[in-house]
Amino acid sequence: MSIELTLGEILKVLPEVHLEGDNQVGPFRGVATLEKAQSGDIAFLGNPKYKGQVLSSRASLVLLPRNFVGFPRDNQCFIRVEEPSYALALICRVIEERLFPPPPLGIHSSSCVENGAMVADSVTIGPFCHIESGAEIGSGVRIASHVHVGAFAKVGAETRLFNGVKLLSRCELGERVILNAGVVVGSEGYGFDQVSGRHEKIPHLGKVVIEDDVEIGANTCIDRSRFAETRIGEGTKIDNLVQIGHNVRIGKRCLVVAQVGISGSVSFEDDVIVGGQAGFAGHLNVGKGAKIAAQAGITKNVEAGSFLKGNPALSYDLAQRIAVLQRKLPDLFKRFADLEKTS
Amino acid sequence: MSIELTLGEILKVLPEVHLEGDNQVGPFRGVATLEKAQSGDIAFLGNPKYKGQVLSSRASLVLLPRNFVGFPRDNQCFIRVEEPSYALALICRVIEERLFPPPPLGIHSSSCVENGAMVADSVTIGPFCHIESGAEIGSGVRIASHVHVGAFAKVGAETRLFNGVKLLSRCELGERVILNAGVVVGSEGYGFDQVSGRHEKIPHLGKVVIEDDVEIGANTCIDRSRFAETRIGEGTKIDNLVQIGHNVRIGKRCLVVAQVGISGSVSFEDDVIVGGQAGFAGHLNVGKGAKIAAQAGITKNVEAGSFLKGNPALSYDLAQRIAVLQRKLPDLFKRFADLEKTS
Amino acid sequence: MSIELTLGEILKVLPEVHLEGDNQVGPFRGVATLEKAQSGDIAFLGNPKYKGQVLSSRASLVLLPRNFVGFPRDNQCFIRVEEPSYALALICRVIEERLFPPPPLGIHSSSCVENGAMVADSVTIGPFCHIESGAEIGSGVRIASHVHVGAFAKVGAETRLFNGVKLLSRCELGERVILNAGVVVGSEGYGFDQVSGRHEKIPHLGKVVIEDDVEIGANTCIDRSRFAETRIGEGTKIDNLVQIGHNVRIGKRCLVVAQVGISGSVSFEDDVIVGGQAGFAGHLNVGKGAKIAAQAGITKNVEAGSFLKGNPALSYDLAQRIAVLQRKLPDLFKRFADLEKTS
Repeated sequence: MSIELTLGEILKVLPEVHLEGDNQVGPFRGVATLEKAQSGDIAFLGNPKYKGQVLSSRASLVLLPRNFVGFPRDNQCFIRVEEPSYALALICRVIEERLFPPPPLGIHSSSCVENGAMVADSVTIGPFCHIESGAEIGSGVRIASHVHVGAFAKVGAETRLFNGVKLLSRCELGERVILNAGVVVGSEGYGFDQVSGRHEKIPHLGKVVIEDDVEIGANTCIDRSRFAETRIGEGTKIDNLVQIGHNVRIGKRCLVVAQVGISGSVSFEDDVIVGGQAGFAGHLNVGKGAKIAAQAGITKNVEAGSFLKGNPALSYDLAQRIAVLQRKLPDLFKRFADLEKTS
Repeated sequence: MSIELTLGEILKVLPEVHLEGDNQVGPFRGVATLEKAQSGDIAFLGNPKYKGQVLSSRASLVLLPRNFVGFPRDNQCFIRVEEPSYALALICRVIEERLFPPPPLGIHSSSCVENGAMVADSVTIGPFCHIESGAEIGSGVRIASHVHVGAFAKVGAETRLFNGVKLLSRCELGERVILNAGVVVGSEGYGFDQVSGRHEKIPHLGKVVIEDDVEIGANTCIDRSRFAETRIGEGTKIDNLVQIGHNVRIGKRCLVVAQVGISGSVSFEDDVIVGGQAGFAGHLNVGKGAKIAAQAGITKNVEAGSFLKGNPALSYDLAQRIAVLQRKLPDLFKRFADLEKTS
Repeated sequence: MSIELTLGEILKVLPEVHLEGDNQVGPFRGVATLEKAQSGDIAFLGNPKYKGQVLSSRASLVLLPRNFVGFPRDNQCFIRVEEPSYALALICRVIEERLFPPPPLGIHSSSCVENGAMVADSVTIGPFCHIESGAEIGSGVRIASHVHVGAFAKVGAETRLFNGVKLLSRCELGERVILNAGVVVGSEGYGFDQVSGRHEKIPHLGKVVIEDDVEIGANTCIDRSRFAETRIGEGTKIDNLVQIGHNVRIGKRCLVVAQVGISGSVSFEDDVIVGGQAGFAGHLNVGKGAKIAAQAGITKNVEAGSFLKGNPALSYDLAQRIAVLQRKLPDLFKRFADLEKTS
């Protein structure tokens, strides 16, 4: 990371903050943790447990919560904000645009945009992309190399498709959606009829609808529905290598960590959080705000607000208590054998 | 979904059925569940548990099992068949060809077919495909965009390769195979020798052979063998994001659900069913018709016909019973402590 | 597999070995197991448990450990070496170059190498590749079709990128690295701040650094770091469909089997071995030489040299013992009920 960011540029994105100490610091070269920061770096106190590191940090600029007690050193500047981590994110977006500048507007000459595709003016389409007839690409969309957008698919404004994304026919993305590299949206659902001892494919005629501000991690797969739609709700964030089956409905603002598997026709209400590698059997309902621990196996409906762990999944507290008791099983069996002898 | 399908077109794919009620219904606009169907829709009774919804359904056409008792309403038509779900699938294939029409025959001008590749006349090869020398592409094959077919690979008649599939050198696909988007067939197996404290790669000289009527889900990976072949048997259906190691042999008509991991040299006999996220240690044999529950961890050979669950895997019934008893451990420990006191 | 390899060609890669029996055997057609080998095949004794198969094997050439007792038959040759499996690997590399010959040097005419990319002379870049400005490609690098190398990414000498690899901006690969088909290196980390009830993306400004001699399996994903780097140590081998989160550090010579998930900021010391589908919660340290069984769930730091299993993970021996006792729970509950009655 090698940048040149001035204090003035930072104050543009953090307009109403209070400076303490040296207001001539900068330009800044990078961002680092409190401990590793050198002179010229920006650091921040995101987690109170590191507050002891602030006063010894060599960072030239430190973002702090308003209630932090302490003063900057010479040639150091403190900025107090409501949420230092978010303030840093705002600064980092400026840095991001420098380190990873958007490619120039326009459609790369190697790409294939079929007649009948509707592409807004202000888009970027990288090399070797294939946009089929009937597809609609909104304004401000950025499409990296090797992307496929199928017939009648829709890509909302400001959405980003990273390299090698496959958005299959008739699937729809909202605005500001991010599909990371290798994501597949709209593959055929896994459903078969048994006919004369053979598995006969059930056609999947539906689509996938992804609402505004959803992000999907690299190489994640989302299958199209049988008739209506597979739907991912607004603001939901899905990590890498996740499997989402046909007809699944995910609510708004859910978090689904890497390698989770969600079987066909599962329904998540809003604000569900799922740890990595957890799995869901088909046709379940998961209530609003439920939390599922990593690697859990869910085979029944989940009540709103519950927190489950294990396979079979139990309430988190019970699962933890049983885990403790399991470690005592060798002792229990021994004590029991002793007791049997004496009884 | 927006289609216009006439009763006549339906009767062409369901030739020997009996109509009841209004034989002037249609054209039909879509397919829906009994409950959600509107006038103009086709619905079906696939699961007897929904039979109570038939007589109140607003669907214009309902596919029913022969033994259903009841009569259509005005402007409604019933069709009785042996298997309503399969009859629907036959109708849906007609709809599918309209919603997702095959691209025109021929090789897209942007694609790169090397000298020495053998491509049948009636194939479709989309944009940005790379077909290496010595590859053989059979008649009726449909290849979507961004597909790689390696040297001396074979693709049987009527097989479909979706976007971004990588079929590596010397691997062979039978007829009517479907590889969904992002599938990798023929990557190098994961095998190393320890030499002077380093992991030295073991070359993998074999191939992957996929028999007729196999389907493979999006982003699934199948490694080539060390010498002979990794083989997937006829009619087997594999879901998304599955890992199949080198030298694995999967029998005929197996079902392997998403995110399953199968280590090197495992052998499945025919008709094995594996739930999502289950894993298999290397070199195991899984007997004919065995069923493995989701998330199970299999470390020993599996007898034909058995049904296993858990890690370490136990018979399904024992695993369920132990799960119940585990929930009673807190109570058992307490009762035991009481008993010790009184003894 | 169809090759023609002479004994002389074999002796070139195994220079100091001792021949017994017929030194006129060959040319050889293939490699097979002792049991399946036919006349004209090469076989080897890698695992002592198969030594009983040597003297009945029809292989024309057998690689054996020095201490094997027995003599070749007519028309058969034995070669004794320190490590038969590694000797075979050396032979197989010769075969590999014949079965999978490297494509011709040079940049395929369909590929897009941007101005400002630095590409060494002796590289192979296949069709439909995109090399962005500022990228550096070292000598002897082989890049297959549909690969993306982002701006300012570095690819060390002799490294191989298989089909459809996405190496995103500013990420760095050492020498002799292998990225199998579909690998994504440098996708954005999964990190969000909660701001006014929304998940606000945390920019990820860092990179991924992959050291020399690392191999990464098909469709595996490695996220870029928040500030500094995600790093994979020299000689580490990672299997297919693995998830490696942002800021992870993997030591040297580690083995990570398929479908493992490693959350953000986890740190592995050297020589760690992880079985398939195991998962790691964030910010953990895993000590040197630790072994983690397949499907384990790791939620605490792991001591050097330990061997863990299960979720929650226990020492392997304790986990095995508890597994045995769990199977006895039905009996224990019954005996306990009897004892309660009699007390």
